[in-house]
Amino acid sequence: MTPRHNDAAEIANKRTVSRRRFLTAASVAGSGFAGRALADTLADVPARAPGGPMSGHSGRSQYVHLARIPEAGPGLRHVDPSNAINSKTPLNKLVGSLTPTDLHYERSHAGVPDLDPTEHRLLIHGMVRRPMVLRVDDLQAMQSVSRIHFIECTGNGWENWKTADPTLTVQNTHGLVSTNEWTGVPLRFLIDLVSKDRGSNWMLAEGGDGAGVDRSIPLTDEILDEAFVAYGQNGEPLRPAHGFPIRLIMPGFEGNLNIKWLRRLKFGNQPWMTRWETDRYTQLLADGEARQFQLRMETNSVITSPSGMMEIRPGENRVTGLAWSGHGKIAKVEISTDAGKTWKDAQLTQGALRKAQTRFQMDWIWDGNPTKIVSRSTDEKGNVQPDRKSFIDRVGTNALFHYHAQQTWAIDAMGRVTNVLA
Amino acid sequence: MTPRHNDAAEIANKRTVSRRRFLTAASVAGSGFAGRALADTLADVPARAPGGPMSGHSGRSQYVHLARIPEAGPGLRHVDPSNAINSKTPLNKLVGSLTPTDLHYERSHAGVPDLDPTEHRLLIHGMVRRPMVLRVDDLQAMQSVSRIHFIECTGNGWENWKTADPTLTVQNTHGLVSTNEWTGVPLRFLIDLVSKDRGSNWMLAEGGDGAGVDRSIPLTDEILDEAFVAYGQNGEPLRPAHGFPIRLIMPGFEGNLNIKWLRRLKFGNQPWMTRWETDRYTQLLADGEARQFQLRMETNSVITSPSGMMEIRPGENRVTGLAWSGHGKIAKVEISTDAGKTWKDAQLTQGALRKAQTRFQMDWIWDGNPTKIVSRSTDEKGNVQPDRKSFIDRVGTNALFHYHAQQTWAIDAMGRVTNVLA
Repeated sequence: MTPRHNDAAEIANKRTVSRRRFLTAASVAGSGFAGRALADTLADVPARAPGGPMSGHSGRSQYVHLARIPEAGPGLRHVDPSNAINSKTPLNKLVGSLTPTDLHYERSHAGVPDLDPTEHRLLIHGMVRRPMVLRVDDLQAMQSVSRIHFIECTGNGWENWKTADPTLTVQNTHGLVSTNEWTGVPLRFLIDLVSKDRGSNWMLAEGGDGAGVDRSIPLTDEILDEAFVAYGQNGEPLRPAHGFPIRLIMPGFEGNLNIKWLRRLKFGNQPWMTRWETDRYTQLLADGEARQFQLRMETNSVITSPSGMMEIRPGENRVTGLAWSGHGKIAKVEISTDAGKTWKDAQLTQGALRKAQTRFQMDWIWDGNPTKIVSRSTDEKGNVQPDRKSFIDRVGTNALFHYHAQQTWAIDAMGRVTNVLA
Repeated sequence: MTPRHNDAAEIANKRTVSRRRFLTAASVAGSGFAGRALADTLADVPARAPGGPMSGHSGRSQYVHLARIPEAGPGLRHVDPSNAINSKTPLNKLVGSLTPTDLHYERSHAGVPDLDPTEHRLLIHGMVRRPMVLRVDDLQAMQSVSRIHFIECTGNGWENWKTADPTLTVQNTHGLVSTNEWTGVPLRFLIDLVSKDRGSNWMLAEGGDGAGVDRSIPLTDEILDEAFVAYGQNGEPLRPAHGFPIRLIMPGFEGNLNIKWLRRLKFGNQPWMTRWETDRYTQLLADGEARQFQLRMETNSVITSPSGMMEIRPGENRVTGLAWSGHGKIAKVEISTDAGKTWKDAQLTQGALRKAQTRFQMDWIWDGNPTKIVSRSTDEKGNVQPDRKSFIDRVGTNALFHYHAQQTWAIDAMGRVTNVLA
């Protein structure tokens, strides 16, 4: 083994050197590394590997470990899955903007039914001229749309209302949001089909799970234009945890309005005041007022790497995360690496889609001193994600839903990253 | 049970009536169906169902059956998977435009290795000032892009060069194309990093599988702008069948150029004339000329429903399918339901993405007489998918690759759909 080859092996095997190398490539020009003989460098590349058989399904690598975390509610991790009420997406391990179908977050109020699609029906009635009972294959024979949208549980972020558990990962703090491609029938098509009365400006949507979650939805132009009854998810039929055989998609609005296992749409002229809107999804504000029908999900973002429970090294690091808004497209994401004192524009990894998660990134040289990193997003309507202080001043800490304050991660002198309030 | 309720049950249970009902809704206005009491219609909706537990992964419904078909080559279905050379996507059962990750088509020359990402290396060398050996986590720390693109095996469609087996489904005829979101490092970033010589205008990309597939790639501006080294697929790490831990993404070009298990990029100033380009991926034309480096995938489309081995009924049917082009966006898809005599514009289900599959659809009333249905796509550069006769006149029937003639499905008096040449 020549000394030159030793250099090459060292570079290939030492993480720190390797990480810095590509970011300071210009500085090594003309060093012994350049001009190294082909035979030497090829020695660093592992031999080719024989393969296993072709198959009906491409499984994950034995080296990849991805799973959601079933939880029983805020602060209630590590539960028996049969007691869980939600299951969070591992945002810390994902790349790009889409969420793998089997890792899309779950939230349900009576577990996950697997309904027989040939028996399932959708009743459409109330203030309509022609009430109808539709089969799933009726819906599949109608005109369809396919749209990439995020869905977010209105409880996403609920871990950090009052205190910040330093052991939380971004999967714990923000894992109740996901982005998939959804396919189904526009609500407007169904409304024309049943000939809704002009006087009807509210719709009740009811699920077919044991809890029968039902919500009143105001028929604004935006919702009439964008809502649809979906049967497809990332190219295939919905999965049971996500509403198979059909669910409502309400782009940009509370996850619980995207009614899963949809069995009924009723049209009326006032909200039904179901228990889900008089009790569960009512928001207690700082001044003691209880707010109902706070339906839209707000402008949000979070740095997914580096994030809670990760460790970084001094030098070049890539800061990356996800941003989303129920108001429309993400227009800008800024990152602060000095606890919010100064901000730099992050790069958006691809064109931002309307009401979908958008990946952002920025290169950053960490000097090894303790600091805090934080992101804030701005959407195309000009809504800016609030800092925690102004958000809490306005909403207080007794609320449970619509937490969308900027997320701060602290980094200590050892490079350990932890969840903090600000 | 009242007579009125009998009507409702009849409507809900009879497929033909049900299918026609929503398309002729206007004609039933004022019938006994409208104004039916709520209690009656609710009786048609199944009771709510209790649910199973939350989980780490959302599996498919017990009622959904989706799998690829491993094949040994043109006409060689139903093989032992260990002898298969590819595995085809079930286009007939998918919706939307994305392909489920585990159903993305497979094509490999030495099976599917599952490489250890901590051991894997990417060597970049040749006509460069700073040859490098990169680890996978080096790549993950660099700036990245996320793009939704189709990948298509250059052999896609090879079943129909000479004859049309009437038992083939669209999975058999066109299942070697899929669309995923891919995430990775732009080729330009890597080229700047190693400081490529200006005189280098070709790149060799080599895979780490047992076959060591390697291809010479011309460094056109388009390829320099769009190619990237991917580590992510639909939000997660690549799966082994699709190149884990890293693969090349060459948007719009032959699938085999999207080198899986990528272990080497070498820069030079002429093609390497590997056996994959002197033997395998050379195209024998009608005039006896053998064409090399026919790299771009052409403008293509196929109706996925109704398609081979399906059955339809007279009356309203929805015609839907997928269109794609290696030249850019799909601009238009037309459908003929009279064997190509007349054409109507289909509706694109969502905004067409550059070099990605686009879903199209059209409502159609079948009169019950035997006929043939066919689609043809046009891309933003004005390329029109050719009919079979003009395509075969030009290319002949001795070729094996780049079949992209219009696909015709015949429908007999019983509604049975079969694969035909035109």
